[in-house]
Amino acid sequence: MDKRKELALTRHKEWGGKLEITARAPVSNADELAIAYTPGVAEPCLAIQQDVDLSYIYTRRHNLIAVVTDGSAVLGLGNIGPEAGMPVMEGKCALFKAYGGVDAFPLCIRSQESDEIVRTVTLLAGSFGGINLEDISAPRCFEIERRLKQTLDIPVFHDDQHGTAVVTLAALRNALKVVDKSLDEVRILINGAGAAAMAIAKLLRAAGLDPAHLIMCDSKGAIYEGRSDLNAYKAEIAAISNPAKLQGKLDEVIEGMDVFIGVSAAGVLKADMVSKMSTHAIVFACANPVPEIMPEEALAAGAAVVATGRSDYPNQINNVLAFPGIFRGTLDCRASDISEGMNLAAARAIADLVSPAELDATHIMPNAFDPRVAPAVAREVIAAARSEKLNRI
Amino acid sequence: MDKRKELALTRHKEWGGKLEITARAPVSNADELAIAYTPGVAEPCLAIQQDVDLSYIYTRRHNLIAVVTDGSAVLGLGNIGPEAGMPVMEGKCALFKAYGGVDAFPLCIRSQESDEIVRTVTLLAGSFGGINLEDISAPRCFEIERRLKQTLDIPVFHDDQHGTAVVTLAALRNALKVVDKSLDEVRILINGAGAAAMAIAKLLRAAGLDPAHLIMCDSKGAIYEGRSDLNAYKAEIAAISNPAKLQGKLDEVIEGMDVFIGVSAAGVLKADMVSKMSTHAIVFACANPVPEIMPEEALAAGAAVVATGRSDYPNQINNVLAFPGIFRGTLDCRASDISEGMNLAAARAIADLVSPAELDATHIMPNAFDPRVAPAVAREVIAAARSEKLNRI
Repeated sequence: MDKRKELALTRHKEWGGKLEITARAPVSNADELAIAYTPGVAEPCLAIQQDVDLSYIYTRRHNLIAVVTDGSAVLGLGNIGPEAGMPVMEGKCALFKAYGGVDAFPLCIRSQESDEIVRTVTLLAGSFGGINLEDISAPRCFEIERRLKQTLDIPVFHDDQHGTAVVTLAALRNALKVVDKSLDEVRILINGAGAAAMAIAKLLRAAGLDPAHLIMCDSKGAIYEGRSDLNAYKAEIAAISNPAKLQGKLDEVIEGMDVFIGVSAAGVLKADMVSKMSTHAIVFACANPVPEIMPEEALAAGAAVVATGRSDYPNQINNVLAFPGIFRGTLDCRASDISEGMNLAAARAIADLVSPAELDATHIMPNAFDPRVAPAVAREVIAAARSEKLNRI
Repeated sequence: MDKRKELALTRHKEWGGKLEITARAPVSNADELAIAYTPGVAEPCLAIQQDVDLSYIYTRRHNLIAVVTDGSAVLGLGNIGPEAGMPVMEGKCALFKAYGGVDAFPLCIRSQESDEIVRTVTLLAGSFGGINLEDISAPRCFEIERRLKQTLDIPVFHDDQHGTAVVTLAALRNALKVVDKSLDEVRILINGAGAAAMAIAKLLRAAGLDPAHLIMCDSKGAIYEGRSDLNAYKAEIAAISNPAKLQGKLDEVIEGMDVFIGVSAAGVLKADMVSKMSTHAIVFACANPVPEIMPEEALAAGAAVVATGRSDYPNQINNVLAFPGIFRGTLDCRASDISEGMNLAAARAIADLVSPAELDATHIMPNAFDPRVAPAVAREVIAAARSEKLNRI
């Protein structure tokens, strides 16, 4: 086992869990207990019984979300189950706290039935101010998210979809400035047909992309209406892209594209494909940990701007830029939902943190650890929620 | 509104929730993230996938329980619902941490269907090391607890039943020493037929009480086999007590009793009833906040030892003496269940903390805030779990 793997196991054992629950109220003597517990606690209970919105005042709900998974699509590890997914969920919760000040609690559900997951989360919604779905495999994640958004009175967010879409759009906005192109003219190819690809496509359209300028590919090539092997989910992709029904493999349809967005698999983008793209091509190779093409190779093949998910190359597209601030803003204005408008606002806020003076081909994204990010995202998310009247305070 | 009520509301608002989730792992730069999150986190995930028991090593599960309610029987407030029950659950979790070092997270379920509550908790069991049921109304609490104990691979405890039974037995042990009587000779009347009464009856029997010496009363009087108005649950009470089928109202059947244990309602025990008890009578008047009889009145009527649930009188019977140490011990030996043997051990540990020199009619219980209590309870609980081979480490 290499050293980093060994260190990860050692540290996880030493930590004994990456989260801890602590008390914010003193309970060490009879007087304190009489306020925080019986008999005093009856007062906030009765107040909430009269007006359930007071649960946001008298309990932790105003700052508390659940990070929910079924362990079916954890990182690149696949369907490893709820207990094995927990280290990732604890880590995600630690990030929510460190970057957004959000209390997040991990719930790993021992079922991969959509009905059961929806029902479980629905029954627990009164204990939380929001739900972050995590690492649930497609296409179940779409149905689960849709049903929860319909049912629940608290916001629901699937980070693998929308967090990824937000940071991708932020990166694209700035990359387009670098190459002096605009979103309403570029032709974009999204390679991959999973949850992230779908969410990116929808957010790009919400941002103004003409569907005629969007092609999505799976491992067989371009997805188009009427392709004989499409399942219901890919049929939906066909319906929102490629109206000209362009056909062909990735190496064919990539010709003349301005932007490649890969949320697919290691090494699938070859140098000769990049060469076929338009001049000043933008390549986002986001497969993790090994991207669709290594940055040096893409640049050598003529790409003008390259981004990946990796921290050891420039232009890291990292969800941590989005989800802490999105939930910070959502909780602070008690939004009932997280809309595409709020996602667009988050992407704009992230992009705008790179000043015109800083912006260049190797600097299209703010640093993932820049403390200005989450507050700036939260501010714009709140403004968007207010303009859509989704805020409740 | 009186001052204490106002203060309780003010404080709860200031606290903004009595619990907080904090990170135990550093995640403030790329190197730290590479261990606590991707890519390092894959190692504990894969390890747990191979051996699910490693979830107790690499995640917080070894020290984490859920405090679960449906809000159906919260304090003396009744069926106030899940959101309104949350301040009590947060308080309970704060007590678990302060007294037992146990991380406890409150889950308030928006359903009062036993099937749904059982299913919800079952699906979440992989995220916790134990389940504490709280403030679920009888008789549903019996079925829910029984089914969860059968189904789950983690311990399940209903504090309103077993925590109350443990502290009551602890108090009784010491009260009997004060009056120089023994558990196998005394006659005991339990007034009340709810969850606590049932659990107390069962634990007293496990401690050696002859069922022929036990009478249980509801508001109509003694419960006996064949009484025409018994539901299934009270029929079970009849089956474990009063084999002589003694009949009569409380003021009749109390005659000659050595011990009165009230888990019923304010003021139902009158002075003249206490006078009919045997000499050196023991009266536990545990209705909250107003007991079945006020201590001074019971003493004036001839009781030798009186205990209540109140902190402003001697001999407080308070569950906080039991549940933190019981879960501390259960988690520390990773017990698969919390057995009556472990409950008996907990009661003995609590009683034994009052030294022979300290023990008298006004000092049968250790102070609720005595820091020796939880460790002593945990120690005895672990020993009992080991002797029953319920421990897993």
